[in-house]
Amino acid sequence: MSTELEIIDRLKILFPKIGDDAEEFNITPGFTPVVSIDSFVQGVHFDLSLITPYDAGYRSCAATLSDIAAIGGRPKVLLCALGMPEGNITLAESLARGIRSLADKFDTEIIGGDTVKSKDLFISLCVIGEAKRIVRRNGAKLGDVLCVTAPLGGSVAGLKTLKNNLTSFKEVIEKYIHPKPRIEEGLILSEFATSMIDVSDGLSIDLYHLLKESGVGAIIHSVPVEKEAKKIAMLMEEKPDDFALYGGEDFELLFTLNRKNLGKLRKKLNFFEIGEIVKEGMRFDDGREIKLGGYDHFTKVNSKIKY
Amino acid sequence: MSTELEIIDRLKILFPKIGDDAEEFNITPGFTPVVSIDSFVQGVHFDLSLITPYDAGYRSCAATLSDIAAIGGRPKVLLCALGMPEGNITLAESLARGIRSLADKFDTEIIGGDTVKSKDLFISLCVIGEAKRIVRRNGAKLGDVLCVTAPLGGSVAGLKTLKNNLTSFKEVIEKYIHPKPRIEEGLILSEFATSMIDVSDGLSIDLYHLLKESGVGAIIHSVPVEKEAKKIAMLMEEKPDDFALYGGEDFELLFTLNRKNLGKLRKKLNFFEIGEIVKEGMRFDDGREIKLGGYDHFTKVNSKIKY
Repeated sequence: MSTELEIIDRLKILFPKIGDDAEEFNITPGFTPVVSIDSFVQGVHFDLSLITPYDAGYRSCAATLSDIAAIGGRPKVLLCALGMPEGNITLAESLARGIRSLADKFDTEIIGGDTVKSKDLFISLCVIGEAKRIVRRNGAKLGDVLCVTAPLGGSVAGLKTLKNNLTSFKEVIEKYIHPKPRIEEGLILSEFATSMIDVSDGLSIDLYHLLKESGVGAIIHSVPVEKEAKKIAMLMEEKPDDFALYGGEDFELLFTLNRKNLGKLRKKLNFFEIGEIVKEGMRFDDGREIKLGGYDHFTKVNSKIKY
Repeated sequence: MSTELEIIDRLKILFPKIGDDAEEFNITPGFTPVVSIDSFVQGVHFDLSLITPYDAGYRSCAATLSDIAAIGGRPKVLLCALGMPEGNITLAESLARGIRSLADKFDTEIIGGDTVKSKDLFISLCVIGEAKRIVRRNGAKLGDVLCVTAPLGGSVAGLKTLKNNLTSFKEVIEKYIHPKPRIEEGLILSEFATSMIDVSDGLSIDLYHLLKESGVGAIIHSVPVEKEAKKIAMLMEEKPDDFALYGGEDFELLFTLNRKNLGKLRKKLNFFEIGEIVKEGMRFDDGREIKLGGYDHFTKVNSKIKY
């Protein structure tokens, strides 16, 4: 057990500008500033009996930066409010190191923070970024192709692997504990995509949002599922597609594109064409309807959908 | 008890842009963008057995906006992450109404949020503002006068009043439950002040920060104490000065000023001259040293000071 002062002193090394004053930041001229806030609670969004505090910090930061990737922006600065039981300096430092490590990968400076006592451990992260052209959820057009930046389902497969102690599946565990926000991909896509969202709650829910806000429907030809995730699904007698449809937290980008831009984008980015935009509905091409559902946080705003 | 979906639907009325995408905002050309984050936890920063959820939201928002006032800025947009036990729609709505009510008073738009489940109720608020000239804590100069925007101690007196059920002291209760961030005052002061901070942890601690960062000392001639707070101190056989020195959460502005600007500022703003900047130390003019201490959150970064 350590004093709060020791915790703050240690955190100051990782977050030099932690404190109570407002801090300035810069937005590149010609860019639009954008911002998003996310909260993560121990026992709800992460489980410290399965992952380290470092990983909890890392993946919380990844999820937050992914909100900027999802609109085609570049993260600039991060603020972190940490609520935690008193006195655990190792926990605080490890969390902070995880946040800092991911933020550093994307040149995102941590310019502020607050540390408070609470029974639950929680992390609130606010990211400010900038975008040249913001890609919203509401721009999908009839005839557009529907694409995703990589196969899905790896993250939930990693979580299931950890829960069942199947530690030989290293790739999905890595995908779960160290997800990669698709910042560079989002920046490329900001030139091409007609609509975009990150896959945080599962393909079914995130696609539903995109379609609903664009006022269109979609037919899915194929659901790309991460390789190891397929094996785990088979091992657990589950459907691989369900990992992608209902797993979530892959933080890949789901986007729509005018077909004439497919070739141009292929030269700049690897991606998977999974379907096309139609007038209404959300179906596979064999006519089966795609049911809504998601990895159940109970709590995330966008995992609660009216049928 | 209500479903999470109902809570979100209700919150959407108050926070229309709550959701998971990053949201854009504007900064006035010629102004510098500034940002601050704060967290508030039930049982630590507010007590719902003493105040309503509306008031908890209101005062949390006031404390957050005060961080922008403290540097001479104007708040522009607010993001709110709410962690709370499942199902209490009345609590969620009341909190949100309190936050919205204070934000509206300062034309601060709520452009994003996140709602998550947690055992503790917590609020994380991130405010983005803009400043023409940022006034920092570190600019106090030898010979400057030390001033404060209003008498102090009202807030802690209000809290003590509530705890002891002395409900006839309406002014300090109002000061505690509905503090006013000094935005307009901060904007005026941004033209004149050499250094500034908001009194959030008590005059002694906040003055200590200002002096430490400026590399100077101060002599205090008089500590202005709020009228009702004086009465309550007498009633409770406590020293009125201690309410101001160690009470905190008044959110008045403590600032330094070149003496030649006193007259000019008097024409624009009411304020109290309380002392002057000297080479070192933190003393009353009778030589008594000012001890450090503060209203004990246990948790706030800046209430933990090395002696």
